Amino acid sequence: MPSNARTVRIEWGDCDPAGIVFYPRYFAMFDHSTSLLIERVVGMSKHQLYETYGIAGYPTVETRARFLAPSAFGDDVVIETSFGAVRRSSFELTHRLSRDGTLAVEGFETRVWTVRDPAHPGRLKPQPIPPELVARFTAA
Amino acid sequence: MPSNARTVRIEWGDCDPAGIVFYPRYFAMFDHSTSLLIERVVGMSKHQLYETYGIAGYPTVETRARFLAPSAFGDDVVIETSFGAVRRSSFELTHRLSRDGTLAVEGFETRVWTVRDPAHPGRLKPQPIPPELVARFTAA
Amino acid sequence: MPSNARTVRIEWGDCDPAGIVFYPRYFAMFDHSTSLLIERVVGMSKHQLYETYGIAGYPTVETRARFLAPSAFGDDVVIETSFGAVRRSSFELTHRLSRDGTLAVEGFETRVWTVRDPAHPGRLKPQPIPPELVARFTAA
Amino acid sequence: MPSNARTVRIEWGDCDPAGIVFYPRYFAMFDHSTSLLIERVVGMSKHQLYETYGIAGYPTVETRARFLAPSAFGDDVVIETSFGAVRRSSFELTHRLSRDGTLAVEGFETRVWTVRDPAHPGRLKPQPIPPELVARFTAA
Repeated sequence: MPSNARTVRIEWGDCDPAGIVFYPRYFAMFDHSTSLLIERVVGMSKHQLYETYGIAGYPTVETRARFLAPSAFGDDVVIETSFGAVRRSSFELTHRLSRDGTLAVEGFETRVWTVRDPAHPGRLKPQPIPPELVARFTAA
Repeated sequence: MPSNARTVRIEWGDCDPAGIVFYPRYFAMFDHSTSLLIERVVGMSKHQLYETYGIAGYPTVETRARFLAPSAFGDDVVIETSFGAVRRSSFELTHRLSRDGTLAVEGFETRVWTVRDPAHPGRLKPQPIPPELVARFTAA
Repeated sequence: MPSNARTVRIEWGDCDPAGIVFYPRYFAMFDHSTSLLIERVVGMSKHQLYETYGIAGYPTVETRARFLAPSAFGDDVVIETSFGAVRRSSFELTHRLSRDGTLAVEGFETRVWTVRDPAHPGRLKPQPIPPELVARFTAA
Repeated sequence: MPSNARTVRIEWGDCDPAGIVFYPRYFAMFDHSTSLLIERVVGMSKHQLYETYGIAGYPTVETRARFLAPSAFGDDVVIETSFGAVRRSSFELTHRLSRDGTLAVEGFETRVWTVRDPAHPGRLKPQPIPPELVARFTAA
């Protein structure tokens, strides 16, 4: 499955009074990693993707994470993000955040491909992922 | 000038490794205080305000703050927000954050009343503040 | 099991370009709800708790959430937080965030009671939860 | 005066329902830019700096910013950070954030060199900046 890795420097503002990353911040990092992976695999920006496919986004409907070791201000961590199962209108991603080669946080998320629901203004509804994107999300 | 006060409990996630509020968080608190003050003075929600007046928002174009004393996790601080000068298409606000009656942070911001610019899609342009709102922003 | 409910007004800064809460923000809200519940059940502030029991915190080691319906700027949501299983040195919490009586987000977290590890400076190690606190965490 | 430039990709989570950067996020970006500049100029990490000089940090006591043009999700912005006046126990920094070569945000901050105050536990007091650091902060 396609994957992407990036290095993130832990910032002062990511950390809490215990001196370690405030865990909601990991989800923000993972969210950006997902955007970057999708952009790279699809070959267009999130903005272009929205316009090209008329989608309202691919919101996260479920997520979980295990925090194995803390990270602190100034640490350089590597986040490796990979596609998991790709279904009709949803797909999964895995994030593995490591420091000095040791896994520190593991995150999983399920996202849904959505369009605006014409029957209910302001609401979204799932939509099948276009076949050419399924092909890219699942490419060897 | 109209003003509003609210009490905010400092959260663990607002604080940095020094154990004190990470100062960008104060601006997020001030931003919400401004929304609450405008809602109360106008008598409608931000959402209703946008729809009623066709505005694109009242973005901050300038802000400054002085940090006189730090606050820490668990502190209850009071933020008092007041209108300052109200001009043709801009207005000022002052925020005074205190703890146990002592001023700890002082913030100032200038906001502009904007609509979408039909000549430049995706851009905003200043618009005169409607007279009835000027009256409310400057009521004694 | 002890529980606590609080109402949270969704702020402009909690929301993303889709106009809905950026999901990492829910974890920050849940984290604060946990602090408030523990303070209320124990009858002391987080600061006092740290000093009284010599702990280094009760970090989250695992969390998951399901996002059933989005919330937007200005919404008032209710977060109900309850203790789940309480074990030797760890405990679970459940958060149910609802809007207008409908469940919108469900969160689960496992936390560990920790002290500083004298054998490894800068690291934490699990510690049995004091019996009087177990009694409070599990009170009917 | 020493300066540093870095490119920052605007993240989805940095932006608000208007689709533009929520302005408190700029201050978080500036704070990290300051840390990076000081690390580079001093030649040690923030952690090492704290240990070497026994400081409690260099908190911001005053900041201001002008927001000239908004930035949106996916934009690559350049933040150029420079030292300004360096005084006995305080120093100034300027941040210029630009997009496609056009200045979009300008930030100014004053920071104070502090140590823990032995007379008042939990409080900080200003301390003269060590001469060798003044030399580095003001190097041509």
